[in-house]
Amino acid sequence: MDGESTLSLVLFSGTDDKLTAAAVLAVGAAAMGRPVNVFLQYWALDAFRRDRITRYHGSAPEAGPAGDALLRGSLEGPKHWSETLRQAKDVGDVRIHACALSTELFGISQADLDPLVDDIEGVAAFMGDAADGPITFI
Amino acid sequence: MDGESTLSLVLFSGTDDKLTAAAVLAVGAAAMGRPVNVFLQYWALDAFRRDRITRYHGSAPEAGPAGDALLRGSLEGPKHWSETLRQAKDVGDVRIHACALSTELFGISQADLDPLVDDIEGVAAFMGDAADGPITFI
Amino acid sequence: MDGESTLSLVLFSGTDDKLTAAAVLAVGAAAMGRPVNVFLQYWALDAFRRDRITRYHGSAPEAGPAGDALLRGSLEGPKHWSETLRQAKDVGDVRIHACALSTELFGISQADLDPLVDDIEGVAAFMGDAADGPITFI
Repeated sequence: MDGESTLSLVLFSGTDDKLTAAAVLAVGAAAMGRPVNVFLQYWALDAFRRDRITRYHGSAPEAGPAGDALLRGSLEGPKHWSETLRQAKDVGDVRIHACALSTELFGISQADLDPLVDDIEGVAAFMGDAADGPITFI
Repeated sequence: MDGESTLSLVLFSGTDDKLTAAAVLAVGAAAMGRPVNVFLQYWALDAFRRDRITRYHGSAPEAGPAGDALLRGSLEGPKHWSETLRQAKDVGDVRIHACALSTELFGISQADLDPLVDDIEGVAAFMGDAADGPITFI
Repeated sequence: MDGESTLSLVLFSGTDDKLTAAAVLAVGAAAMGRPVNVFLQYWALDAFRRDRITRYHGSAPEAGPAGDALLRGSLEGPKHWSETLRQAKDVGDVRIHACALSTELFGISQADLDPLVDDIEGVAAFMGDAADGPITFI
């Protein structure tokens, strides 16, 4: 595995701290010329809905009220994770897929999702692209 | 790393949404002929107890009451993650190990665990099988 | 990827159960001669502050009061995850980096962190060291 092996990120959690951490890893890998393959499941998929992607989605329970307030302040404007992901797509080969099973569970179609999401795909297609590198679950 | 490198999954969380996500990744990898090496720690190990594996184990905090109800409904019958894992074991090379340290912490033996669990092993044995592929913590 | 590819661990969560799981994976990999590259973000970084690293940081929500009490009892003395990480650094090539963005968010400098932390670095440096192995997010 060299520096160009694909980084596959399974985004499961829907809180803004984890989504920010994921976006930072994606942009870091993309800047190094590494392909990034993102798969959105469950609460992360829900957070990518077009009408609420920049709404506040909360933080991990251990943040507490002070940590939560700190996180919330850090998400303003250009620092929002959705903007970081847009940058990552501009600089590199970053594809974002919605998990087909999760779209069925929530009853959502691609029209409901932010344009950051390229398509809806099944786990077999995701695993095919994940054959040659790390699979990181966030 | 080619398509046949082992996918190692460390299951830590005991909620049914993460266990379902894990089972979907395991069956997707197994269907592609990829060995799957599962290590059960903490709350995930607790969820594999023989007498409560199909009991409802809750969801991530960000699910909220509506998301929780949706998840709960999705787990009925053949769609339960334990059935998906059984399928994964039928179609491919999927081994499920209980972490020795976690079994000691909970005071449980293999007889307490669902037959899906092949054995109890230490972290050195797990790491030995994880030498040639991704290690995904869920 | 052979047994000596670097294991990169992104520590995000600040609860003691996940930090213990991470330390066990780190020491297991280090004992096999595998380099370990740790990146501390968000609530995990906060848990590495010099003045509170051994304080109790809680457990996953699904632990419940009984699980939480069990975990708390397991952290006494030499079994604390910070001691396990110290062992891992003694036996192998384990480097622990604080994420620059997270140190800015919390307003902390290296002097505020436990000596286990080697330095503060950006995501590009972390990704450079993570080029040849798994990236595990905990």
